[in-house]
Amino acid sequence: MLTIALAQIPVIPGRPDKNTATILRHIDDARAAGADLVIFPELAVPGYLLGDVWEQPAFLDDCAACGQEIIDAAMGITVMFGNVALDREKRNPDGRVRKYNAFFTAQDGFLIGPDDMPYPFAVKTLLPNYREFDDSRYFFSLPRLAAELGRAPEDLLSPVRFMVRDQRYSVGCLLCEDGWSDDYGLSPFAAIRRKGPVDFFVNISASPYTLGKNGKRHRVFGREAKESDAPVLYVNNIGLQDNGKTVYTFDGASAVYDRQGTLRRSLKPFAPGLDVFALDAIGDSPAIEPAADDGIAGVWQALSFGVREFLARIGMKRVVVGVSGGIDSAVTAALYADAIGPENVLLVNMPSRFNSDTTKDLARRLAANLGCRYAVAPIQESVERTVRQIEETPFTDLADGGETRLTLSPLAVENIQARDRSARLLAGFAAAFGGGFTCNANKAETTVGYSTLYGDQSGFLAALADLWKHQVYDLARYLNDTVYGREVIPAASLTIVPSAELSDAQDVNQGQGDPLRYPYHDYLFRAFIERWQKAAPEDVLQWYADGVLEQQIGCAPGLVAQYFPTPADFIADLERWWNQFCGLAVAKRLQAPPILAVSRRAYGFDHREAQNGPYYTKKYRALKARLLTIGEHTPRLEG
Amino acid sequence: MLTIALAQIPVIPGRPDKNTATILRHIDDARAAGADLVIFPELAVPGYLLGDVWEQPAFLDDCAACGQEIIDAAMGITVMFGNVALDREKRNPDGRVRKYNAFFTAQDGFLIGPDDMPYPFAVKTLLPNYREFDDSRYFFSLPRLAAELGRAPEDLLSPVRFMVRDQRYSVGCLLCEDGWSDDYGLSPFAAIRRKGPVDFFVNISASPYTLGKNGKRHRVFGREAKESDAPVLYVNNIGLQDNGKTVYTFDGASAVYDRQGTLRRSLKPFAPGLDVFALDAIGDSPAIEPAADDGIAGVWQALSFGVREFLARIGMKRVVVGVSGGIDSAVTAALYADAIGPENVLLVNMPSRFNSDTTKDLARRLAANLGCRYAVAPIQESVERTVRQIEETPFTDLADGGETRLTLSPLAVENIQARDRSARLLAGFAAAFGGGFTCNANKAETTVGYSTLYGDQSGFLAALADLWKHQVYDLARYLNDTVYGREVIPAASLTIVPSAELSDAQDVNQGQGDPLRYPYHDYLFRAFIERWQKAAPEDVLQWYADGVLEQQIGCAPGLVAQYFPTPADFIADLERWWNQFCGLAVAKRLQAPPILAVSRRAYGFDHREAQNGPYYTKKYRALKARLLTIGEHTPRLEG
Repeated sequence: MLTIALAQIPVIPGRPDKNTATILRHIDDARAAGADLVIFPELAVPGYLLGDVWEQPAFLDDCAACGQEIIDAAMGITVMFGNVALDREKRNPDGRVRKYNAFFTAQDGFLIGPDDMPYPFAVKTLLPNYREFDDSRYFFSLPRLAAELGRAPEDLLSPVRFMVRDQRYSVGCLLCEDGWSDDYGLSPFAAIRRKGPVDFFVNISASPYTLGKNGKRHRVFGREAKESDAPVLYVNNIGLQDNGKTVYTFDGASAVYDRQGTLRRSLKPFAPGLDVFALDAIGDSPAIEPAADDGIAGVWQALSFGVREFLARIGMKRVVVGVSGGIDSAVTAALYADAIGPENVLLVNMPSRFNSDTTKDLARRLAANLGCRYAVAPIQESVERTVRQIEETPFTDLADGGETRLTLSPLAVENIQARDRSARLLAGFAAAFGGGFTCNANKAETTVGYSTLYGDQSGFLAALADLWKHQVYDLARYLNDTVYGREVIPAASLTIVPSAELSDAQDVNQGQGDPLRYPYHDYLFRAFIERWQKAAPEDVLQWYADGVLEQQIGCAPGLVAQYFPTPADFIADLERWWNQFCGLAVAKRLQAPPILAVSRRAYGFDHREAQNGPYYTKKYRALKARLLTIGEHTPRLEG
Repeated sequence: MLTIALAQIPVIPGRPDKNTATILRHIDDARAAGADLVIFPELAVPGYLLGDVWEQPAFLDDCAACGQEIIDAAMGITVMFGNVALDREKRNPDGRVRKYNAFFTAQDGFLIGPDDMPYPFAVKTLLPNYREFDDSRYFFSLPRLAAELGRAPEDLLSPVRFMVRDQRYSVGCLLCEDGWSDDYGLSPFAAIRRKGPVDFFVNISASPYTLGKNGKRHRVFGREAKESDAPVLYVNNIGLQDNGKTVYTFDGASAVYDRQGTLRRSLKPFAPGLDVFALDAIGDSPAIEPAADDGIAGVWQALSFGVREFLARIGMKRVVVGVSGGIDSAVTAALYADAIGPENVLLVNMPSRFNSDTTKDLARRLAANLGCRYAVAPIQESVERTVRQIEETPFTDLADGGETRLTLSPLAVENIQARDRSARLLAGFAAAFGGGFTCNANKAETTVGYSTLYGDQSGFLAALADLWKHQVYDLARYLNDTVYGREVIPAASLTIVPSAELSDAQDVNQGQGDPLRYPYHDYLFRAFIERWQKAAPEDVLQWYADGVLEQQIGCAPGLVAQYFPTPADFIADLERWWNQFCGLAVAKRLQAPPILAVSRRAYGFDHREAQNGPYYTKKYRALKARLLTIGEHTPRLEG
């Protein structure tokens, strides 16, 4: 009877020393718990998201040395773990040393590779190269290796066989994406099971949390277990890793599927865990009904874990949050107060003459509810001085002594307010407090750059920038109802019109606010970025013409006709925001803080973009012309 | 006799409409010039660096429609061009439609593919996936296609054969990286020439300018021509394309190598060109001695072209440059004044009490020399008010009414000065002027984050951030000696000590300035980032111990002993900057402006990084311990 331990460990990217210590400790724990086999996640030694640190030979050597320590520690227990494997005799296509994302099986100080592999380790077959994944930038895949050897990939895919107490086990060893083979034309699960019966499959992963991903994994891995007639053991790490602009949480959520594909064991997400069980007894555990993982509770778990871990990673213990009385800053404040304690969160309201008593009062109530220290730091005087200095500074033509002066537009003055708050005050308060200040942007604003660079677009982390406005409201309700269990975010912050309050035209007491109509734009923008087949104006306009737009983008029915009386209105709005999305918003995102990712598509490294400006296809232009000329009763677009 | 036209056209990324118009016009021009064959660059229809626009089906359809227009226009002339090719029956591994980076040959409205290909077009074989390149994120490679068909890649690689005036031509059609096959284990040149004699090879490219790259291309392509005993025609586009954080110029530099590998024709870099010549007469052109392309003249060409094109791309016509009297801002000002005219460049000096008359005078002289309008906008008063507001704002505990106040450290006050200049004044001046403001950072500062976020680290473009400090000096001399032919950058700006002038400790008149010792640190940092085998502290310390450090990094001999009397001094300096490079500097780069790339490794999308902090390998720690304990006479590191 084989006793197995799944080690859902925290992996720190770029710290092979610490990760190796964690692994060695868990080997001891597993042995003490009577395990014959302990399984660690993919790339558990180096971590997964390291950027181009993979190009440092010294780092690679260190990983190899750490790997050897683990192999040496596999005494009296079989250890499976992920590490980078080097073949110093060969090159990657970039001319650097050959690197594999490898699955090691160590027993009594020796490595055991799959039957038909030229190496004593398994190699990741399917290297994801979409979303945030860049595997093929660094690693040589099994299909490439097979081609180099003049063989088919299926030839090399084979089980790892080892003995425990005179009993032989045959195990299919897969790495992460290897289990998600639908679009690759090559299924590692299928290739291995064709090589003969397998006692069980192991998938070691470094798989970031994504809203709804675990539900899909249960279906995919359950199906593979059933088709293989063998249990599937899934081991994922926890922790936080980033690709620079996009920060990912890793939820673990390690699991065991029995040979019928039923989920039998499931480790607590976002928590370390060592799960020890007997292979033969998998079916004895009660069947687990997979929890729905597409709701706000999961988002909260990821954000809360992510904020804590990110602060720990960068060594930040205190934050300053600029609070406007609006919903985004209120949710941000509640998130950080929960994560690091209200005593470590300062809230600052920075009114100009455009800020209403309504919102100022809401900001203060928020602080009182959360128990955070609170300050009011007005910006009106500073903004006026800045405007005066800019407009009164003479620019001299030194050749003839002629002087010119500049004039600020109303929009420019709005931006001066936003920068005065963030780059002047918040940055200063944060430095004095010994911490950072937060960026409170949501995903809708981020999509179209409805923000000021070096103003509200700045901060050390944009924790909510992967949430649409309606998700921010959902989170606010969840915070009050569930996390705090009382009204910390004032109810009025949920009902007040969202407004930047940067001019007389944005008076919340008159119901005047943002130009974004979130109940529609949230969903329109989601179609631009999150649909697997990204929507462009051509698609949107076609859906509009066909009367299926609301259904396609998922917003409430009736909104489009309500907001846009004519095709011309609709088209003007669409082009306004598409131009922003592809134009100035790109420039702003390039200088925006890292985003904590929760969705299937976050800005940053997950969604790559160039400053190329908007494009309208030939079909779009034809359809637009047709819509604008149908009937005399529809007004024509100006200009 | 075949007459060939190389069309070195400007390609605008993401604008198939405009690029197709350019191509159609050049087809007419080539026909009018008597050409039988006209050749356009790789991905001439869509452009190359588009980010995830490749995921928009509407965009892909538009490219296909544009491609059809070009095919239809190939009447009475054979047209070779690059475009994305779609196979709607197949998927990419990401589940999206199958896309190839394809080489089309059109004649009389029909396509002609390579002999042994299942498609009527050639497909890029080698997809680069290093530096800024992400080809495999979007395109399906020829080796993958071959594997899918159960064949070897070499089977599919074959010449394109077409008739012109009853004469049959056999042409090897390659795309960009296909010609640079050293580390791929598969040579498209060799595979095609093994299929029988080839009249000539064509390599269509979308190849960004990199210092020294053309020299390497002459060697590689010349060698391939010689080995093939066939001319090689290289067609590259001009223009500017970006990957978001990194902006690339495309220099064209299209070329013809004869069958001996001698360079015979060479198009002017960074300029559009249509070069028409007879295939049989290639050898009649005089041999061209490839110009050295690793000097400051090439850098200047790329920067000058890049700045103009970038401003045009984003529609910016005016810029504001903050000028300190130092070298970086002086070179930046001279660059922009040359690019868009001094009348469109405002220079602003923003002194605090720490700025010397020396530098203020240098800033003014620079403006006078360049003929730019000039202003002095002091920041002292504003900084003092900000410091006062931050330190005097009470933070209230709303539960007990207790008040706390914050205190700013001297370093925090330095940063307030920097932000006051950029986020308060420069951003305001730029908005009022109707333009942007520049980031004047160099690559050494950028490496270690010696800058203030939302301060001197901000701007719309960091034009010099891929130049080491010594290259900035070289460029200053080049500007005075060659570009302007007179002293526009005051000589004293080249000799004064580099200093931020943010405190009494940075008094230029006392020779006090930056903590960076550029003659050494430029080269140390270059080893961290630009070496193909990236150097880590382990390598640096080993070189130091072996006495070969200066030789390895390329700095002047004797500097290390001069700067660092003891190993402890050396190690403290190394760790200080490595910690910065891997720490706060990453956070700053993530929010820094796009960088205009000229080197073999620029920050941004070319050098990917995570906020993982510094790491010291086991070998490093052992070597450090050894060095610090050798002999009693060497002082030990504190702490």
